[in-house]
Amino acid sequence: RTLRIGLIPGDGIGREVIPAGRRVLEALPSSLNLKFSFVDLEAGYDCFQKTGTALPDKTVDTLKKECDGALFGAVSSPSTKVAGYSSPIVALRKKLDLYANVRPVKTTIGSSNGNPIDLVIVRENTEDLYVKEEKTIEGPNGKVAEAIKRISENASSRISTIAGEIALRRQKIRAAAPATSTRDQPMVTITHKSNVLSQTDGLFRETARKALAAEKFSSVLVEEQIVDSMVYKLFRQPEYYDVIVAPNLYGDILSDGAAALVGSLGLVPSANVGDGFAIGEPCHGSAPDIEGKNIANPIATLRSVALMLEFLGEANAAAKIYTAVDANLDEAKFLSPDMGGKASTTEVLEDVLKRL
Amino acid sequence: RTLRIGLIPGDGIGREVIPAGRRVLEALPSSLNLKFSFVDLEAGYDCFQKTGTALPDKTVDTLKKECDGALFGAVSSPSTKVAGYSSPIVALRKKLDLYANVRPVKTTIGSSNGNPIDLVIVRENTEDLYVKEEKTIEGPNGKVAEAIKRISENASSRISTIAGEIALRRQKIRAAAPATSTRDQPMVTITHKSNVLSQTDGLFRETARKALAAEKFSSVLVEEQIVDSMVYKLFRQPEYYDVIVAPNLYGDILSDGAAALVGSLGLVPSANVGDGFAIGEPCHGSAPDIEGKNIANPIATLRSVALMLEFLGEANAAAKIYTAVDANLDEAKFLSPDMGGKASTTEVLEDVLKRL
Ligand SMILES: CC(C)[C@H](C(=O)O)[C@@H](O)C(=O)O
Ligand SMILES: CC(C)[C@H](C(=O)O)[C@@H](O)C(=O)O
Repeated sequence: RTLRIGLIPGDGIGREVIPAGRRVLEALPSSLNLKFSFVDLEAGYDCFQKTGTALPDKTVDTLKKECDGALFGAVSSPSTKVAGYSSPIVALRKKLDLYANVRPVKTTIGSSNGNPIDLVIVRENTEDLYVKEEKTIEGPNGKVAEAIKRISENASSRISTIAGEIALRRQKIRAAAPATSTRDQPMVTITHKSNVLSQTDGLFRETARKALAAEKFSSVLVEEQIVDSMVYKLFRQPEYYDVIVAPNLYGDILSDGAAALVGSLGLVPSANVGDGFAIGEPCHGSAPDIEGKNIANPIATLRSVALMLEFLGEANAAAKIYTAVDANLDEAKFLSPDMGGKASTTEVLEDVLKRL
Repeated sequence: RTLRIGLIPGDGIGREVIPAGRRVLEALPSSLNLKFSFVDLEAGYDCFQKTGTALPDKTVDTLKKECDGALFGAVSSPSTKVAGYSSPIVALRKKLDLYANVRPVKTTIGSSNGNPIDLVIVRENTEDLYVKEEKTIEGPNGKVAEAIKRISENASSRISTIAGEIALRRQKIRAAAPATSTRDQPMVTITHKSNVLSQTDGLFRETARKALAAEKFSSVLVEEQIVDSMVYKLFRQPEYYDVIVAPNLYGDILSDGAAALVGSLGLVPSANVGDGFAIGEPCHGSAPDIEGKNIANPIATLRSVALMLEFLGEANAAAKIYTAVDANLDEAKFLSPDMGGKASTTEVLEDVLKRL
């Protein structure tokens, strides 16, 4: 099987980590019977400044027509408002209907409480406040701006079902290696703020409950947590959680919070997942302060490559990458500066490649 | 001066901590020349079940007509949707125009990085998604619910000005006791998500920038942080922050996050502040699991009493309470179970009263 992968480095360190992502795909053992072809695509703030659009039609069309998956680096946000500019990754998620944003957060060693953190945030990726329907009126007491938060039964049900499926899949992996985990039941925690937003978040909550009550999820423990106390709990007992499902904005906030728990955003991958398509995307940003220095941590991207492969049905190839990355971290000989190490992007990458 | 204080215990452990708050006011030294009178008021879920409303008019009227300030305990949320029920504290904030929610988070000892955490979250308290304007339509693919997020120039300016004033006030207190702090400049961090919500959060950001550019804030360092990375930073380097100003919902989430950093929600106070009126409110909830056991931590309420007094212009009385509470925590002899101690609510209270 040959997979065609779109490469969208974007801005800043995106241009350093996405090539690392390509390298790891090229270095996968031939015994996997997987081949890759690549196409370079543009998006981001530099692209906006050059061409007037942050997401050229050509990028979207090529992804739709030619590609099986893609890797997205990061984009810079302008530091003041720039007319006409709007985030290309948010647009891409919608245009390709990548309705799930999956963000696993994992430590290889135990947290302060002794147990390792191993959770995944499953974030709805197309609606909520991200519909970006806003207006501003000039009132008698100054400007008043409004935005729409939209929650649909459809999207809420779809994302909750994916969350349940991911919980079952994780349980299967754990069952195959029982020594490494103390969790014996898959769990999904529904996050919302229905004590204030009874209709929108109320709909998310009810729909998630309904979706997760399906027969196939009968082994899954379903809990819920109001978003503010979810953040509190996430910090107090992160090892407790398995799969957390949330509307778009809460998922955005929670995944950065979870990333803080494992030491560096430079470790945390994500995948934007739709039917038959996935874009791997490191959770970190374009990091202009370290751009061009060859010190960006490539791990988040390498893990995002693996995550993309998982959702493209290539779990074995994904496992190879995860194992190599975990071994690099466990040995802790080649770590980038964000991890307290001295290794360059290239050195971390080479160390991982060697372990494939 | 005699201050009349409304007491609204609400549900659960609210009924155990609010009486503790009353006791600390009664025990203040007579040299302060402050007297208090009290009026018991109803609100909450039990009240809703008994009377059909979670916030009786009588409570609102009495606060408006008779009181200088109030103490609010906590309310329970029903675990499933209950028609007609809606959170009384959210309503109270709006009805009394308590436009600022002030939540100081502080450790008496150093954090893992060595420096103590001493920050305050200043949360806009009247608008954002808390306007609770929602509707649901039955579409061809199921239900779709929408909520309005409203951000006004007016409210954003007002809250940012308060944030600046609090930063200046804190700097003055630090200057009086230079040994206990390493911060030499007041700082306000503006939190928003204007990279996605360019109009609403963009308006908050611009307005905050403008308000904090006023001459009187010339000594204040003004920074900004996108909300997701704010959560990340809050966990990675909490000691860095001084005053964080945020729209309503982000403020709600951030203050629970900050609370997690100091060990227990049972330590974190808040004040709902309007012009000439303030309601002290512990950040914790009604905690039905420990209700009636006399083990709730009264510290959040005692600190909320002090915070209320500060905003009613009684900084000296407030300082007495803060000092007594800090001494209780430093000695660590009478700590409630959430702090790893064995003391009852009453024992913690008595220990603080002794130190007044
Ligand atoms: C860059 C920004 C628009 C984006 C988001 O809010 O989704 C980012 O924070 C993320 O989490 O991928
Ligand atoms: C109980 C709830 C409505 C409230 C809020 O969201 O404001 C609470 O979380 C708080 O922070 O005071």
